[in-house]
Amino acid sequence: MSIVVRNTPRADKAVIEGFTGIGVATVHEAQGRIGLLHSCMRPIYRPCHVVGSAVTCEVAPGDNWMIHVAVEQCSPGDILVVAPTSPCEDGYFGDLLAASLMAHGVRALVIEAGVRDASTLTEMGFPVWSKAIFAQGTVKETIGNVNTPIVCAGQLINPGDLIVADDDGVVVVRRKDAAEVLKKSQAREDKEAGVRERLKKGELGMDIYGYRERLAAKGLKYVDWEG
Amino acid sequence: MSIVVRNTPRADKAVIEGFTGIGVATVHEAQGRIGLLHSCMRPIYRPCHVVGSAVTCEVAPGDNWMIHVAVEQCSPGDILVVAPTSPCEDGYFGDLLAASLMAHGVRALVIEAGVRDASTLTEMGFPVWSKAIFAQGTVKETIGNVNTPIVCAGQLINPGDLIVADDDGVVVVRRKDAAEVLKKSQAREDKEAGVRERLKKGELGMDIYGYRERLAAKGLKYVDWEG
Amino acid sequence: MSIVVRNTPRADKAVIEGFTGIGVATVHEAQGRIGLLHSCMRPIYRPCHVVGSAVTCEVAPGDNWMIHVAVEQCSPGDILVVAPTSPCEDGYFGDLLAASLMAHGVRALVIEAGVRDASTLTEMGFPVWSKAIFAQGTVKETIGNVNTPIVCAGQLINPGDLIVADDDGVVVVRRKDAAEVLKKSQAREDKEAGVRERLKKGELGMDIYGYRERLAAKGLKYVDWEG
Amino acid sequence: MSIVVRNTPRADKAVIEGFTGIGVATVHEAQGRIGLLHSCMRPIYRPCHVVGSAVTCEVAPGDNWMIHVAVEQCSPGDILVVAPTSPCEDGYFGDLLAASLMAHGVRALVIEAGVRDASTLTEMGFPVWSKAIFAQGTVKETIGNVNTPIVCAGQLINPGDLIVADDDGVVVVRRKDAAEVLKKSQAREDKEAGVRERLKKGELGMDIYGYRERLAAKGLKYVDWEG
Amino acid sequence: MSIVVRNTPRADKAVIEGFTGIGVATVHEAQGRIGLLHSCMRPIYRPCHVVGSAVTCEVAPGDNWMIHVAVEQCSPGDILVVAPTSPCEDGYFGDLLAASLMAHGVRALVIEAGVRDASTLTEMGFPVWSKAIFAQGTVKETIGNVNTPIVCAGQLINPGDLIVADDDGVVVVRRKDAAEVLKKSQAREDKEAGVRERLKKGELGMDIYGYRERLAAKGLKYVDWEG
Amino acid sequence: MSIVVRNTPRADKAVIEGFTGIGVATVHEAQGRIGLLHSCMRPIYRPCHVVGSAVTCEVAPGDNWMIHVAVEQCSPGDILVVAPTSPCEDGYFGDLLAASLMAHGVRALVIEAGVRDASTLTEMGFPVWSKAIFAQGTVKETIGNVNTPIVCAGQLINPGDLIVADDDGVVVVRRKDAAEVLKKSQAREDKEAGVRERLKKGELGMDIYGYRERLAAKGLKYVDWEG
Repeated sequence: MSIVVRNTPRADKAVIEGFTGIGVATVHEAQGRIGLLHSCMRPIYRPCHVVGSAVTCEVAPGDNWMIHVAVEQCSPGDILVVAPTSPCEDGYFGDLLAASLMAHGVRALVIEAGVRDASTLTEMGFPVWSKAIFAQGTVKETIGNVNTPIVCAGQLINPGDLIVADDDGVVVVRRKDAAEVLKKSQAREDKEAGVRERLKKGELGMDIYGYRERLAAKGLKYVDWEG
Repeated sequence: MSIVVRNTPRADKAVIEGFTGIGVATVHEAQGRIGLLHSCMRPIYRPCHVVGSAVTCEVAPGDNWMIHVAVEQCSPGDILVVAPTSPCEDGYFGDLLAASLMAHGVRALVIEAGVRDASTLTEMGFPVWSKAIFAQGTVKETIGNVNTPIVCAGQLINPGDLIVADDDGVVVVRRKDAAEVLKKSQAREDKEAGVRERLKKGELGMDIYGYRERLAAKGLKYVDWEG
Repeated sequence: MSIVVRNTPRADKAVIEGFTGIGVATVHEAQGRIGLLHSCMRPIYRPCHVVGSAVTCEVAPGDNWMIHVAVEQCSPGDILVVAPTSPCEDGYFGDLLAASLMAHGVRALVIEAGVRDASTLTEMGFPVWSKAIFAQGTVKETIGNVNTPIVCAGQLINPGDLIVADDDGVVVVRRKDAAEVLKKSQAREDKEAGVRERLKKGELGMDIYGYRERLAAKGLKYVDWEG
Repeated sequence: MSIVVRNTPRADKAVIEGFTGIGVATVHEAQGRIGLLHSCMRPIYRPCHVVGSAVTCEVAPGDNWMIHVAVEQCSPGDILVVAPTSPCEDGYFGDLLAASLMAHGVRALVIEAGVRDASTLTEMGFPVWSKAIFAQGTVKETIGNVNTPIVCAGQLINPGDLIVADDDGVVVVRRKDAAEVLKKSQAREDKEAGVRERLKKGELGMDIYGYRERLAAKGLKYVDWEG
Repeated sequence: MSIVVRNTPRADKAVIEGFTGIGVATVHEAQGRIGLLHSCMRPIYRPCHVVGSAVTCEVAPGDNWMIHVAVEQCSPGDILVVAPTSPCEDGYFGDLLAASLMAHGVRALVIEAGVRDASTLTEMGFPVWSKAIFAQGTVKETIGNVNTPIVCAGQLINPGDLIVADDDGVVVVRRKDAAEVLKKSQAREDKEAGVRERLKKGELGMDIYGYRERLAAKGLKYVDWEG
Repeated sequence: MSIVVRNTPRADKAVIEGFTGIGVATVHEAQGRIGLLHSCMRPIYRPCHVVGSAVTCEVAPGDNWMIHVAVEQCSPGDILVVAPTSPCEDGYFGDLLAASLMAHGVRALVIEAGVRDASTLTEMGFPVWSKAIFAQGTVKETIGNVNTPIVCAGQLINPGDLIVADDDGVVVVRRKDAAEVLKKSQAREDKEAGVRERLKKGELGMDIYGYRERLAAKGLKYVDWEG
């Protein structure tokens, strides 16, 4: 049975905005190195950074019908997350769908498949993370699901989960963990700022982090070059 | 036997110019979703868009000798299309060959292999769609064919076929179909312009395209979130 | 046993600077088509061109501890070359390590794995050639080696070998061969400059290089199009 | 935080045994074309067919420590399902771990990574579905989770979910759906048996399934060869 | 427009049978190193060797409807060759379709996509060359073509072309060239038989083929090991 | 300059024979997890196990001329190791070359490229590890090197290095380290034999290896399922 779930919850607005400018790598570390989508998910232009609440959409291979259905379930601040039920690189999404999503305040598309009209999407400033850029069209014959839990690029995504995406990839944060992960991400950023200044002055991470003793204990030896 | 076919026909000039600014995705749809080269064919810089008549060139793996032979068969407005007889990522083509092709009015290179001097090609504004960017050199030992039908990135290309290439990939249009496909492409562009305006105002594709009834007939159900 | 080799030799400074502006394809040809790293090694931004002496670093999969160790062994003008002991796309390197390397005068990173903070690295102007851009973090549990010979992307790299990297990829030149390869690279550039001018005027490579006779001897036939 | 969940539920024994001899393709169709793991998951020997309850195990890249932990949570009839937190092809598993699993009645291993001792595993008759066969060893430094929900090869797997695996791949069935899916799978097998007999006699699927009218309605034309 | 072409020609029966036992590599060499399908096309079991006339079938991604249509166009001695219009690994074909093809005397399937029921196909002795083995099902919604020229795995295949397939892959021979290629293939086999005997006695190919002089002319030097 | 190095040393005969029956995974572990060739190197049939001294051969892409040259440098007990100078899947090697190598006592071929005549090689019992099986032929135009150090599938191989290959892949052992690595491999085998017996009786690796305390120190928690 195929369903569209309406009125799904969103991540907290203040929390979402709090992630502005915080990189995917930081979020991923802050929540204990979990939640990263597969490295095949690349932005169609760089630099880019977005945060938003997931609206999920499961599609058939080579069939983008359900993306049209999903648009209606989107609200300002959302990110549409799409996964096919079997691997596919077809161009599910182009500038018309982007115009529609932008009209409804959607911030980005994350899709484990292909997109097209890449140059127009870039001009429009609509960010997309995808597995491919490919003009191959799709049909509208098979239905799927909107706002059910899906697996996209190796990660489980629930509707309302928080998505952060930038040049380094895409990470998902569970809705209920978002506030906590934000706090940890900010703490991490603060700490890194201090370390960055020391590194810029030429101090070594070896000394700042105190690695020398642990490395010696593991058996690391220093020798001089002998040609 | 290896041959070079001279005086092959070209696509009609007015038709070629008519495709200016029409995207690969549009052309591909307009001709019934056929003719797309494999998604591995990527432009070396973006944005880019070219149209032209194919001069075809079949080369041995790791051997670019026949590209030199092909240059002589090129005329202004042509696009050189190159395919190796077995898969290869070597850098068959660099800035010297590009200078030569530009001197003969060639508009672009489409090659199911690698190219090199990517930064110089970008500065020169010579567009290339290739499978790889790779400095690996080639030899000049084995002959092949020029202007015979070839398969490039999964599509049959005849000399004189029309090639359209942009950020989304590369599509081939049969020479005899080119005028008809142009008409259909333009019609499609016109129709999309109207839809685009409605989508920008927030109308839903669901309503514009009238999908609701068909989706219901397929069994799509709407339910409310229950947590 | 894991070791860090100190005081390894560097390529000659004047020779290193002599390679400024000479492309990877030229160097690769000049030294007899050897030394190219695999085509999977791509720059994180383009255009880019660097030359320097290799400091080598062997790391465990998913573990970047030894990169911190390697920083201390770097001097101005060096390029850090990193290879994991089994294939890995994790993001071993980000903006903090880049800040540290820049503070010590290191010119670039070449890594057969992933990096992260790609947008910040681009802003900083720190060039990186890598197999992936991926936010996935690494641990600091397993030790490896610094300044031992390593295989990176299919090529043997010794500490002190000369590395040239640009948009086309990465090539290694043995330290003892560097002066000779520079001479041959410059000669090649000079020769190509002359050919380039002739090609721009429309002369054919077929004539400049004198290929016609050899092609005929191989059996190449010219025929006219017959539809 | 890393956890090991004890006393997780299993799929019903009678239901598990009911799936004996029912192929992955049938189960996948019977439950509505969902639940298939990615096609990269291949058996190390063929033919093979297993059914069992999932014990899940999340491991760090290049680190098989948690598999040792997971053994203790396994019971007769279980299938161990392992996924790394970032993509890895290392050989996490060999004949010693297989001997241990067999001693505890475990029926198979499903791992989105590599295994080793492939010839011994084959001799032992211990079936494995993996992404690679690779001798590369792993370390024991980083902890993970046992019996938490994981994503393996693109599918969410919960402890106690039913796993069916054969030459065609691996499919997961939710524990609560297993009895229902078994019924549908058996019905499908029965129906196919009848069709198979008719096809063997030369009847056409076109007629058995009644496709002719629908194809004509879609616009399919029959024409005779004209050379 | 989608069409089914009826009464297409077949390769000559005697010629087809003449290829029995002649390997793909030999045929490929004999016809001048052309016609090989991409190396991704692998047999589902080994050893295997078939020869036959191509019936071609173009399918939509994830949609096997046209294979059912194609069965009706097959005659004893044919090989069914299937290609999707965009890349797809779904399991288009299983034991029911195989039973149907066998009932009509079809010798094999060559498909640039996935198949399923691999163990049953193996038991039945129905040979298949495919890009993947994958249980993923397909739909029956979109029509395509039967017995039109298609590109399969990088090669143009016309209905009636001769197909030879074995453990090394798949090669296509144009129908009109088949008798000539058979003669050349047999000549090659005869010649190789003689060489094989000499090689088995320890004679060197260097001497049998007379390579020494040409190698010396190219500049090959022999030196003794110096440690 | 291309060279053939004659009279290169071999690994010690007794040491070579000592490795009989010792698996690649064991050797790789015994020498500190180094020396494994990339996982793309797969045997053409299984099971298989060989040990021998490397004769190295560097070839041009799509050109197998130097393999013929290398045969003459082979002695009984050798393994021929071949790597192309740029990535290639062509079928460099078939049953004629295998017959020749067998006549000179060569035990196996390891090649980072393709081979053909796979079914005949299997019948002959000549083991091959390769990146592909592909009928694509090669030319004899470009010379290379025999018995110089090469990089094959990511590992440096010197002539005379010991090669061990089995179902799990290929590992190289430096000639001077071979005796020591043999001793360590045998010790490892002995130790594993004892552990295997205990595991077969149902003892847990957790207890045999004493992991519980270290896991607890790392923070691993055990909890009961709560549904």
